Amino acid sequence: MDFGIDNIRAAAQRLEGRVRRTPLLSSPMLDQLTGATVLVKAEALQLTGSFKIRGALNTLLSLSDEERAAGVLAFSTGNHGQAVAASAQMTGSTATIVMPQDAPRIKVDGCRWWGAEVVFYDPATQDREVVGRELVAERGLTLVHPYDDVRVMSGQGTVGLEIVDQLGEGGYSPDAVVLPCSGGGLSSGTIEAVRHSLPGVTPFVVERAGYPKMARSLASGQVEKVPAVPVFLDAIGSPTVGQHTLEALSRHPVEALEVTDDQARVAMREAVRTLKLVVEPGGSAALAAVLAHKERFAGQTVVVVASGGNVDASVLAEVLATGP
Amino acid sequence: MDFGIDNIRAAAQRLEGRVRRTPLLSSPMLDQLTGATVLVKAEALQLTGSFKIRGALNTLLSLSDEERAAGVLAFSTGNHGQAVAASAQMTGSTATIVMPQDAPRIKVDGCRWWGAEVVFYDPATQDREVVGRELVAERGLTLVHPYDDVRVMSGQGTVGLEIVDQLGEGGYSPDAVVLPCSGGGLSSGTIEAVRHSLPGVTPFVVERAGYPKMARSLASGQVEKVPAVPVFLDAIGSPTVGQHTLEALSRHPVEALEVTDDQARVAMREAVRTLKLVVEPGGSAALAAVLAHKERFAGQTVVVVASGGNVDASVLAEVLATGP
Repeated sequence: MDFGIDNIRAAAQRLEGRVRRTPLLSSPMLDQLTGATVLVKAEALQLTGSFKIRGALNTLLSLSDEERAAGVLAFSTGNHGQAVAASAQMTGSTATIVMPQDAPRIKVDGCRWWGAEVVFYDPATQDREVVGRELVAERGLTLVHPYDDVRVMSGQGTVGLEIVDQLGEGGYSPDAVVLPCSGGGLSSGTIEAVRHSLPGVTPFVVERAGYPKMARSLASGQVEKVPAVPVFLDAIGSPTVGQHTLEALSRHPVEALEVTDDQARVAMREAVRTLKLVVEPGGSAALAAVLAHKERFAGQTVVVVASGGNVDASVLAEVLATGP
Repeated sequence: MDFGIDNIRAAAQRLEGRVRRTPLLSSPMLDQLTGATVLVKAEALQLTGSFKIRGALNTLLSLSDEERAAGVLAFSTGNHGQAVAASAQMTGSTATIVMPQDAPRIKVDGCRWWGAEVVFYDPATQDREVVGRELVAERGLTLVHPYDDVRVMSGQGTVGLEIVDQLGEGGYSPDAVVLPCSGGGLSSGTIEAVRHSLPGVTPFVVERAGYPKMARSLASGQVEKVPAVPVFLDAIGSPTVGQHTLEALSRHPVEALEVTDDQARVAMREAVRTLKLVVEPGGSAALAAVLAHKERFAGQTVVVVASGGNVDASVLAEVLATGP
């Protein structure tokens, strides 16, 4: 696998002026609550509501004219789907998105808003990769993998380049960078970029409690799977990690944390209260980890990636209404 | 009254590095919904959750050492109070905040979090200005007026300086700037700054439906009052405008719009859905006006100030739950 800072810098050049440089937010109240200096990279404010546009658009821009003309396909719980749909529209291609039938409505609507065709599958009985690869073969499409592709990982890594720039502008010396982890695209890219410039930073990946597939994969050295079940933290619900993302993360001293659904709810409420930022369940995982594992970060300067904000209004309402 | 671009530039120098340069957000979905290019100046992401810190801190930094040492007082529905409390703490002063007894809890908590003493009054039977001025006299405090003070107006005007910079960076040619209006501090400062650099921009102020006190004041040329009643749009619930703010706004061809509570609710929901931004009822007024008066802005490039995000979780939950 050819993956490193040069790939990420090339992605940044391709994406220049096409995606947003999202702000690094902070709150004195959040700092007091955590006992740390917490800097939140607000990818919920990214175009399409999550970081996923970075990897998807970098991939679309790397395809041949023929591939773009034939169309692309993505399987996705929603954020990657919206990103591929938007990237296809932005580059004159067309997108087919394979989504679980219980995907949040805001994500289904988002894919369609960007002009994509949505094909549903039943996550209880079907493997989304199989459904996707069949459609690719039938229709002559190019698969844009949600994480296990160097073009995607490189695009997501531009989050890390921005973090490094923004830390410098703010005069911060970070101790840790904390990322939600599903297949590993965001974490592998961002950690590669951050640690290239700041090798002393400790990288953390955050997974669903009870389903630490990346932690297990890093420990065993091979791709480990977990059952595919409908989850509140839908954005980090992939049943497996990637071969490439595992290889890339294995280069770094990655620590793994887990968060429960209730911890994610707390983080969603605190993001609203202290940051005025809407984060979706999976997008809140890194913040949830810092709130739930305060002892690991006490006194440190911690960068947290809030990876997405695509949550149905009814779900956010329920989370806010059940708070303290 | 000595008020103009030079005051605002001096305020920007004082505030440099102490308050945030908030982002100018946008959403293709919001643009489609409005039929305009909408750029949202996200002052909800400002320190203390609203633009008010700009004017308050500029004022605190303009006081003598003796005045700061004796302490300051503010009467406020909450955002100005939090801003004065934070500004006092940041400059080694102490703050007393006079608030209506029905102020949102998040705003009361915010004032106390920043170390202020909160004194409640009954808005049905008491005039907050009278309560405030009595305490000022008793305790030897300096009043930091919520809007009718050149130092405050100049601080709020830094919103406009940033908007001009950000429009330039983004290559935008704006047609209109739309602001929530209560006492007129934000609107007078921002409109002065924006139209200094961009004299062709049409300025709009947005008030509560049925309580167009600034529109009436601009028409009559004198300060007009409305009844002080508890309102959903609490941040724009001042019963009067300022003499100085009226004079400053009278220099410009200001147009006035009104929004209902329900229109504000729609805007709060759309801010969450399309921008991932939490805005409070009053902070949503400008966006609500653009959504509710689409015909006025069709095809235009419109800057909207989302002035604050301090809304109780229970209120936001109710607004989100009752949406379409």
